[in-house]
Amino acid sequence: MKKYTVGIDFGTLSGRCVVVDCENGRELTEAVCEYPHGVMDTQLPGGKKLPAHYALQHPADYLQVLKTAVPEAVKKAGIAPEEVAGIGIDFTACTILPVDAQGTPLCLRPEYADEPHAYVKLWKHHAAQPEADEINALAEAREEKWLKNYGGKLSSEWMLPKVLEILRQAPKVYANTARFMEAADWVVSALVGEEIHSNSFAGYKALYFEGDYPSNDFMTALDKGLDGIVGTKLSRRIGGFSAPAGKLCPKGAELTGLPVETPVAIPQIDAHAATPALQITDPGEMMLIMGTSACLLVNAETGDPVEGISGCVKDGVIPGLYAYEAGQAAVGDIFDWFVKNQVPAAYQQEAESRGISIHALLTEKAEKLAVGESGLLALDWLNGNRSVLDDSALSGLILGMTLQTKPEEIYRAWLESTAFGAKMIMDTLAQSRVTVKRLKAAGGIAHKNALLMQIYADVLDCEICLCQSTQAGALGSAIYAAAAAGVYPDIPAAAAAMGSPVVKTYTPNRSNQKAYEKLYCEYVKLYDYFGRGGNDVMKHLLGK
Amino acid sequence: MKKYTVGIDFGTLSGRCVVVDCENGRELTEAVCEYPHGVMDTQLPGGKKLPAHYALQHPADYLQVLKTAVPEAVKKAGIAPEEVAGIGIDFTACTILPVDAQGTPLCLRPEYADEPHAYVKLWKHHAAQPEADEINALAEAREEKWLKNYGGKLSSEWMLPKVLEILRQAPKVYANTARFMEAADWVVSALVGEEIHSNSFAGYKALYFEGDYPSNDFMTALDKGLDGIVGTKLSRRIGGFSAPAGKLCPKGAELTGLPVETPVAIPQIDAHAATPALQITDPGEMMLIMGTSACLLVNAETGDPVEGISGCVKDGVIPGLYAYEAGQAAVGDIFDWFVKNQVPAAYQQEAESRGISIHALLTEKAEKLAVGESGLLALDWLNGNRSVLDDSALSGLILGMTLQTKPEEIYRAWLESTAFGAKMIMDTLAQSRVTVKRLKAAGGIAHKNALLMQIYADVLDCEICLCQSTQAGALGSAIYAAAAAGVYPDIPAAAAAMGSPVVKTYTPNRSNQKAYEKLYCEYVKLYDYFGRGGNDVMKHLLGK
Repeated sequence: MKKYTVGIDFGTLSGRCVVVDCENGRELTEAVCEYPHGVMDTQLPGGKKLPAHYALQHPADYLQVLKTAVPEAVKKAGIAPEEVAGIGIDFTACTILPVDAQGTPLCLRPEYADEPHAYVKLWKHHAAQPEADEINALAEAREEKWLKNYGGKLSSEWMLPKVLEILRQAPKVYANTARFMEAADWVVSALVGEEIHSNSFAGYKALYFEGDYPSNDFMTALDKGLDGIVGTKLSRRIGGFSAPAGKLCPKGAELTGLPVETPVAIPQIDAHAATPALQITDPGEMMLIMGTSACLLVNAETGDPVEGISGCVKDGVIPGLYAYEAGQAAVGDIFDWFVKNQVPAAYQQEAESRGISIHALLTEKAEKLAVGESGLLALDWLNGNRSVLDDSALSGLILGMTLQTKPEEIYRAWLESTAFGAKMIMDTLAQSRVTVKRLKAAGGIAHKNALLMQIYADVLDCEICLCQSTQAGALGSAIYAAAAAGVYPDIPAAAAAMGSPVVKTYTPNRSNQKAYEKLYCEYVKLYDYFGRGGNDVMKHLLGK
Repeated sequence: MKKYTVGIDFGTLSGRCVVVDCENGRELTEAVCEYPHGVMDTQLPGGKKLPAHYALQHPADYLQVLKTAVPEAVKKAGIAPEEVAGIGIDFTACTILPVDAQGTPLCLRPEYADEPHAYVKLWKHHAAQPEADEINALAEAREEKWLKNYGGKLSSEWMLPKVLEILRQAPKVYANTARFMEAADWVVSALVGEEIHSNSFAGYKALYFEGDYPSNDFMTALDKGLDGIVGTKLSRRIGGFSAPAGKLCPKGAELTGLPVETPVAIPQIDAHAATPALQITDPGEMMLIMGTSACLLVNAETGDPVEGISGCVKDGVIPGLYAYEAGQAAVGDIFDWFVKNQVPAAYQQEAESRGISIHALLTEKAEKLAVGESGLLALDWLNGNRSVLDDSALSGLILGMTLQTKPEEIYRAWLESTAFGAKMIMDTLAQSRVTVKRLKAAGGIAHKNALLMQIYADVLDCEICLCQSTQAGALGSAIYAAAAAGVYPDIPAAAAAMGSPVVKTYTPNRSNQKAYEKLYCEYVKLYDYFGRGGNDVMKHLLGK
């Protein structure tokens, strides 16, 4: 009897594969494969330097995950490949690449090896901001009906700005592209041997709204070079979660070491995939996935547009409900940047001599500080602001430093800034009557940093339930796989059986919550001043 | 024949003594004595914790400088103590202490060992801001004529706020104080065996204006407890530079190892002492002394009040001219704070393996950056703002960080922020027709960091001459000593013979200057917003 599914979570730096017991959702094993090329933000593999705001990936890295992590996880689980009922994957988004008519990424062709625009543009590639601005201005001028549904503003991270960037910067690449594909769709297509595009990625990231992309009229008004793109370079072959994407083709079977004909689910956006894993099924329940960046997703019964909330897709996550998606462009990335660039040798030595991580040391020291004690306040925009400003031309800010300011104080200020960023999103939703009653969290740092979680509970003034799975995305993918394979009749049924239990609840500390209310008011004032046109210094400094 | 003088520069962390040849100003030797207690900003010697914004010193440390650095410098010079014609000292200001009728610092009494207010309050002790605010409000309401001469606003660093703080926080200390003394005056009094107060310290730091302190009427309106302070706890025994302070008494001779009756000059404020050393004698010449903090001093023919320029004293530096003094509360201190708290282990290791200082490494990397390349901008207020805002309740700010931001970029942004701070001072003076035609620089970092000096030249759009002496304060003190000892008829004559030659001239780089003009506009906008009431977040965060 086939009672296991494989879920693969393609993150920013690595792919994680879990083998899950379909009966109870138990994660038997996991295997991680770091991407050999990681994030290419300074140069291409051949040494060519990249401009600022680039973030590229190499598609071969994804296949490496299939080749190594999948067989490793299956082997460690002690099960036979034949016992795997299905495969599901989730992926960062919007992470796109141009492919030729055979589905081969253009960057793999020798003539494009030194062409940045032929590579995968990772979600956090932010060089297409001018294109995003142009699209937004035109869509607003033309009162395009889809615009409101995307928070009134496209992000530079999405499909169309990145495609337009390619057309403008590398017309040859554009001309030779048969299809622009989400990396997720490209991986699934490689597994099943035929091209398929996920409804979720298309809906949230490629302006696929009410059954189609923006009109050719709009596209050509934007740039004559885009004429005819809809239905050609942008595929209309969209698949929803009600049916599998297909079954493993011989090549896909060879890649993964799993039998030919194993069912493969339609891929899901990484953070969205965690929803069934966290058993989020009711309106008003918000999922908070905290990793290098953060995704906040809340189900609601109605789908009115909310300003600055970048996506609301019907059936996007749970059939019958609207799912609002918001995001923070950097969370864990900020803390990692800080640790890499701003922590003195003495701290490194202390952490090493005590055998703890530098994050653990900083957290330990930061925990002893009272709220507001440091006098610091920060804006968490080191990777721009996704929600609710949708503006990648913003940057980080910290103020309040004195000659006595210590590294742990700055560390804590960055932790707090991300919590304030999340509160701004929740408050904006609440203003449109999308209320959050309950928060369920998962993701790397949610499990690693209890101080961060307590700060979130205090700042958001809301209980936060931490779910057991440390691989909620991968587990969710395994749940999608179970539904796709027919082990359960539908996704909710699979989620009910396989979802991850709550292991810890963070309750707001009343006095901290009060103290944070004051700090948050100051945060909002800075947020509005620097983010809404009061002072565009960040853009001026970026040369925009 | 007595042809040498001794100059002692009492800085923030150490005392530096030079032996100088009166004929040509050649510095024969120097000796440094670090203060054993340094700056006490977290606890007293007995372990008592200090509140925020405290910066205290121990008076015994100053005597230690006399005991060790003076004999060492004289001995190393290979001269006989009898060949020393005179002694001059300069000191940080306003750095005050309460003493009893015998001139003994109260902190040396056992019953006050754990009383912070009995110790020396260093210039950068910033806990008396509420008192400064109160004094400013009252003086403004009463239209006290002296207020305009101090830029319309007292600094919390000055004598009266610190005295009022003692009265309010430690009334017993106040009651038992016979005299509040500048540490400079206390040291000179110890040398000559009788009490004397320098006209310069009194004029710039203790509101001694047109021959007296503020009236008793003002003092009692401020606080009844101050009744009768003028002429008692605040001495009217003021001495100008036209005569020596006195001659070494037996105790002073024993301290320094120099003969009894050696003439001792009236002490000068540390940065001001450098003026004769830099041969600054004409109106429109500005002296820039750059150390942990910075002092900007410019001579002018008229002495109209300039808003935000904290002091303008006639004959304050050069007889017949008005000397405007402005200051930056932190310069080198910011870079040191950065290096201590924000530079990662990898950089430390690189510097160590190459055998260079971490400052040198960061400078080398920062030098390669184009102006504006980093997208960073900072406000240099980590120790508050002295000129032109006179507000110690401000704090540092940096913005523009992305996940790619490197330590050297932040380092350079802090360098630039101090240059912008200097430009703001020069612009404010220029608005009142106090123009600067020429800049002469000295001070620790002026000699150490060529990148910083070039940035200053570019930002200020003005040639900067670097003077040879690395101890301009101590050399200036030796020049004052030569005049006091009668080796020369007056200070200008001594300066002409003994002043330090220019060793390097920094000329503005035209394209950098243009680029900095734009950045400076952004700096001014932030300066006004956070410094002039647009957003008082820094004060709110400090709980003020």
